[in-house]
Parts: sequence; C-alpha cells; structure tokens
Amino acid sequence: MANEFQYVLVEREGPITTIWLNHPDRLNVLSRQMMLELTEALGDVGASSAVGVILAAKGRLFSAGHDFAEMADKSPAEVQSLFATCTTMMTALQTMPQPVVARVHALATGAGCQLVASADLAVAAEEATFATPGGKGGLFCTTPLVAVARLIGRRRALEMGMSGDAIDARTAAAWGLVNDVVPLSNLDRATDDLVRRVTRGSVESKAIGKRAFYQQMDLAQPEAYALATQVMADGALIVDAQESIAAFIEKRPPRWREPV
Amino acid sequence: MANEFQYVLVEREGPITTIWLNHPDRLNVLSRQMMLELTEALGDVGASSAVGVILAAKGRLFSAGHDFAEMADKSPAEVQSLFATCTTMMTALQTMPQPVVARVHALATGAGCQLVASADLAVAAEEATFATPGGKGGLFCTTPLVAVARLIGRRRALEMGMSGDAIDARTAAAWGLVNDVVPLSNLDRATDDLVRRVTRGSVESKAIGKRAFYQQMDLAQPEAYALATQVMADGALIVDAQESIAAFIEKRPPRWREPV
Amino acid sequence: MANEFQYVLVEREGPITTIWLNHPDRLNVLSRQMMLELTEALGDVGASSAVGVILAAKGRLFSAGHDFAEMADKSPAEVQSLFATCTTMMTALQTMPQPVVARVHALATGAGCQLVASADLAVAAEEATFATPGGKGGLFCTTPLVAVARLIGRRRALEMGMSGDAIDARTAAAWGLVNDVVPLSNLDRATDDLVRRVTRGSVESKAIGKRAFYQQMDLAQPEAYALATQVMADGALIVDAQESIAAFIEKRPPRWREPV
Repeated sequence: MANEFQYVLVEREGPITTIWLNHPDRLNVLSRQMMLELTEALGDVGASSAVGVILAAKGRLFSAGHDFAEMADKSPAEVQSLFATCTTMMTALQTMPQPVVARVHALATGAGCQLVASADLAVAAEEATFATPGGKGGLFCTTPLVAVARLIGRRRALEMGMSGDAIDARTAAAWGLVNDVVPLSNLDRATDDLVRRVTRGSVESKAIGKRAFYQQMDLAQPEAYALATQVMADGALIVDAQESIAAFIEKRPPRWREPV
Repeated sequence: MANEFQYVLVEREGPITTIWLNHPDRLNVLSRQMMLELTEALGDVGASSAVGVILAAKGRLFSAGHDFAEMADKSPAEVQSLFATCTTMMTALQTMPQPVVARVHALATGAGCQLVASADLAVAAEEATFATPGGKGGLFCTTPLVAVARLIGRRRALEMGMSGDAIDARTAAAWGLVNDVVPLSNLDRATDDLVRRVTRGSVESKAIGKRAFYQQMDLAQPEAYALATQVMADGALIVDAQESIAAFIEKRPPRWREPV
Repeated sequence: MANEFQYVLVEREGPITTIWLNHPDRLNVLSRQMMLELTEALGDVGASSAVGVILAAKGRLFSAGHDFAEMADKSPAEVQSLFATCTTMMTALQTMPQPVVARVHALATGAGCQLVASADLAVAAEEATFATPGGKGGLFCTTPLVAVARLIGRRRALEMGMSGDAIDARTAAAWGLVNDVVPLSNLDRATDDLVRRVTRGSVESKAIGKRAFYQQMDLAQPEAYALATQVMADGALIVDAQESIAAFIEKRPPRWREPV
C-alpha cells in the first residue's frame, strides 16, 4: 500500500498496521481532508491482510477535533456534508473487520474523543485527557456523544457533554472510555500487548464476531439473540472453527487459515 | 414567577433557579398534589430565562417516594392516572431545555430515587442513600427502575430492585447514579460548582444538545448518528455556534446571545 | 419434584431451590443433554412454589461452556439446533418468575460465562474467573456476548470477546458482571444472604417486576415508561400491594399471600 496521504501515515509492521494521524502542526485537527484520508486509509487497511490495527497520533495532541474554520460562513449543505463525512469515518472503524486499538498519548477532544470512543478498544497514557468541549462553547458535541455515551453511560456522558470539561485518563478507564491506562513510557508496549492479545486465533472468526457484536448491541435482546444464534451457528461451520474444534478434541494446537 | 405552590418552592438566584421539594412534614412524599406542582414548576422554569436548575429538598429526607395512602382502595383509573402523572413529571426533567442538577442531601427512595435518576446530573452528600424498596414489599419499583437501570445497568438495578435495600452515596457514585459525592457541609458548594460548570457557553446550543442527547440514546447507533449528524449540522449554523467559531478563529472570547 | 436428571441436581431447602450443574467429570460442559436438562429444571422450578433460585455448580469449574465435540462434523441444522437450545436455556433464567442468583466458585467460560450473565444476580468467589475465549480460537463468543455486553458495556465486552482472556472476580465485580465477590469460604453465606435479601416481600409482585424489568430494558425510554406505568398501576391493585399499603398506613407488618 503506497502512502499517498498528506495528513495520515500508514505503517505496516508484520501483521499489525498502525494508522497515524499525522498533522501535528495543526494538532491533528479533523479537517475534511484529514477525515477523507483517514476514511480511505481505514478502507485500505480493512481490505488488506493486516490482522490488527493501531490508531495513533503524532505530535502534542491526539486530536483537537473538528476544524472550526471549515464551518465558518458555510452553506447548510456544506456543513451537513462535513458532519456526514465525519460519521462515515467513525463508522468505518467499527465496520472494518480487524480489531482497532486506539493509542492515546495526549488530549483527545470533540470528534477526536469520538474517534477514540469509536475504536474497538483503547489504551491511554496517564497524561492523556478526554473532552467533549462543545457544551461550554457554542456547538454542543452531539455526534461525539453518540459514541461516548454508548461506552460510559448517560450520567457521565451528560457531565462531559454539558460541562465540556476534560476528564483524566484514570477517570476514563474507570468509566470504560478506555480499557487501560499506563505511564507514557509504557504506552507502546501496552498497546502492542493489547493488539497482540486481540489478534490471536482465527482472523475470519474474529471478523464475523466483530460485525455481529455491533449489530446485536443495537437490538432488543430477543432480536439480538436471534441474530447472534444464527451467526454463531454459521460461524461454527467455517474452516477455522472446525479446525479449532478438531484441535481441541485431538489435544493439539490449531492451524488457522492464512488471512485472505 | 409567583410562587403559588403548596409543596414546592421556587427560588431564582441570578441565572440559576432552585426548585425545592418543600413538604418536610411528610418527608416530601410525591403525592398527586406534589407531582402536579413539581410538573408545573418544571414547565414554568423551563420556559423562563433561567440557564440552569437545581432540584433540592427541604427537611430530613430528599423524598420518601409515592404517597401510598393515595393508592388505597382506588379504582384502576385513579391509580393509572397517578402513575401517569408521575411519569409526566419525570419526563419533564429531561425535556426542559436547561441542565438540571439534583442536590441530594439524604435518602431518596422509590419515585424519589427515580427523581434523582431523571435529573441530568446529581450530587450527593455522603449521608445520602438511595433505594427502590418495592422489591421487599408488595409493589415492585417498576417505573423507578426505568430511570435507575438506564444509569447503573441491569446487574446493579436488579439488585436494588429485587432486594429493595438502600445503597450509600459512595456506591451510587461508583455505579453512576450520581456524578459526585461530598461531605454534607460541601454539598451546596459542590452543587453550585457543577451547575456553574454545565451552564457555561451558549444556552441555545446546550438546549439543542440536551434534547438530541436523550433522543439519540433511545435509538440504534445508525439511527442515532443520522439524527445527531443532522442536529449537529443544524446546530453549527445558529448564531451562537457561528460566534464561537468566529471567536475561535479570531482568538477572542465569544459573546453569547442572551437567553431568549 | 423428582430429580430424574443425569447432569443437573435440584435441591429444595425451604423456600429456596438450588439448581446444580452436576457433571464435574466433564467440567459441567453445556452439552445438549445438560442444556435440555437445565432448561427443564428451570421450567419445573419456575412453576414450583420456590421463591428464589440459586444456580451453582459441582466440581473444579463452574462451567467449561459448549461441548465442542457436539459441533464436529455436524450438519448446519444440527449446529443451529444446538445454539437454539442454548439460547432457550439462557432466556429461561430471565423469564422464570423467581429471582435467580448465580453462585460462581470457579471459572465460568464461554456459554458458562453467559449462564452467569443471564442469571438475575451473581456472587463470585475470589478464585472465580470469567472468559469468553472464542476470540483467541476459531469460534467467536457471539451469543455469550449478547448477555455479557448487556451487563458490562461495549468497551469491556469487546476486550473480553476479542482477547478471549479471563478476568478475575474483582474485575468482574467492578465491571458489573457479578454483584459481589467474597472469599470462597464465605461464598455460601454470601449467596444465601443475597438470595434472602431478594426474596423478601410479595412473591407475586416480584414476579411481575422481574418480567417487566427485562421487557422495558429492551425498549426506548418513552415506550419503556408506557409499559412500566401500566404494569405499576396494575401492580398496585394486586392483593399483596394493597396489603402492603394497608400495613404501611396502619403501621403494622404486612401479611403476604402464600406463593401460589
């Protein structure tokens, strides 16, 4: 994969691909260009043979969120297109087949916080902070809170949303916004460890599982079970599942299919 | 706003209005009269120029919940009307445009606990306790648990609901039923601080954000994003949003519209 | 109730019935036979005069989850029937009228973890661990995660699901997968205490409350309130509710109807 991007850097190291927000001069602001590039990168990596993805950021901040300059004196259609572009990007993190781990080294704010919340998993440095700051300004963080509130619940999401104040990394871990918090010096190791732990086993099985997970979470429990039961039964018949069953019975390590 | 209420006291201090449950002799029982008055007060304050609301209570308890005497030997229609009145009141807290912070100094039980859960945010004194006691009696707290379980999740809501036992304020904070817990001597300061933090910035923007927040939480994620994306795009075009964007670009403090 | 089961043991002690997974030689694997027996036992106990249920397990593990041998070289229809049987069993825990407390003394993995998550409440020994291990194998734990994620949320459920790694009992309690964690030597006492606390008061009222709780959790809040308001109003008119109201007014202990 050639890296023809201006604000995004894609680095493949063996089975893991790291996608970097790479516009440090502007604090990785989610400009239209950045969002389009990130969406394309996610699509590329999603279709590649990578088995796991790290979402990271270069520079002083993880991301400053939306580029307000792009919303000044624009037509309704232009602004709508901007937010639609953003939602497409966020959704791409959850529809791509690989596990995505956000590596958060510093402030993730507004749509930057939404980006972290939209990754499947996240590790934060102790120095990282998280905010949906629109509540103390003039543009409430309505779309970021879609993702954030689905992780941390109504009470705490409303506090973040209405106050606009940042929470620290320990609070983010306690509330379920990130999976783990570590000293900055350990962030790479902790991220690598988590991405390694979530990319073991069958690639195909995990892709089926990730897709079904997000689908069933949006359903009432009886419909969730109807979907999940079918997916699980189908999933038990794929080559990797039958291999894992055979290996279990024969007390030997399984041999997974290569990523296709 | 004249205070013509019997059991409710409305105090306006600058931009913040405090609504007091004010029937200490009967432990702020949510009698039909109390619920009607509170609903009316919430409507009045919601339509006023107040930018934030504190929900507090006078006397030994925050609220003892429903007035059982009003359910004795009543017709189905009368009882149904009582619970419909209650649900209307609870819903009013979330549909009014301002952030509402519950200030909980003591026990909030049954529908009293639901009242705390229905406020956008809540601060509790260390002495406060919370219960949905119907589980150990003869009338299970089905409606209170609609609000409580949406904050603390199924596992803990079922424990509260089935056992009927009270939890203390620290547990309530750990579970997300309240945002913060402080010594009683600091309760006013902590409540004031929180209400101040959630009423900065544009009043109009926050009202749009609050309404959309509750709407999107009731939707599957794709529909939530469809709604939120539209609300966010529309919200970026209001005067206060454009002002916040201009101020950001021009590196100056924003000037918000007065509350209308 | 005669105990004609091979892998399930039903013990009634006064008002509380304990259902034991009783296939220790195979680590209480959820074979088709085990699932059918457990479903039948849940139905029997559900229809009995028991007022509370403990779900426990004999032997070294709580449950090893699905019996992979039953999925090897099977037709799609056979595998589908296996998972449908499993979902029916899990659902039976939540549709039976009594409170069900899982007593988890050791590892509960895969569908075994789902079993714990599907009980209304759970107490774990400090030695207990919990896993949805399919993520590091060839068959992702899609159905177990329906139940697990509805307790612990997306972030942590995805970590459990994608990594497949076990969490310890303290983590399970912090995340809301179990209600309490105690030393193994106190597990029986803690389980008995919890089941006693959640079986006080009216049996009929609690059955109505449990059914409505799960129903309303699957609805958007306005529909949840519509349902809950009706259930609560109807519930206030049953004999036990009117008795609790009369007792409250007359300041005397209530006399509940006998379980029917």
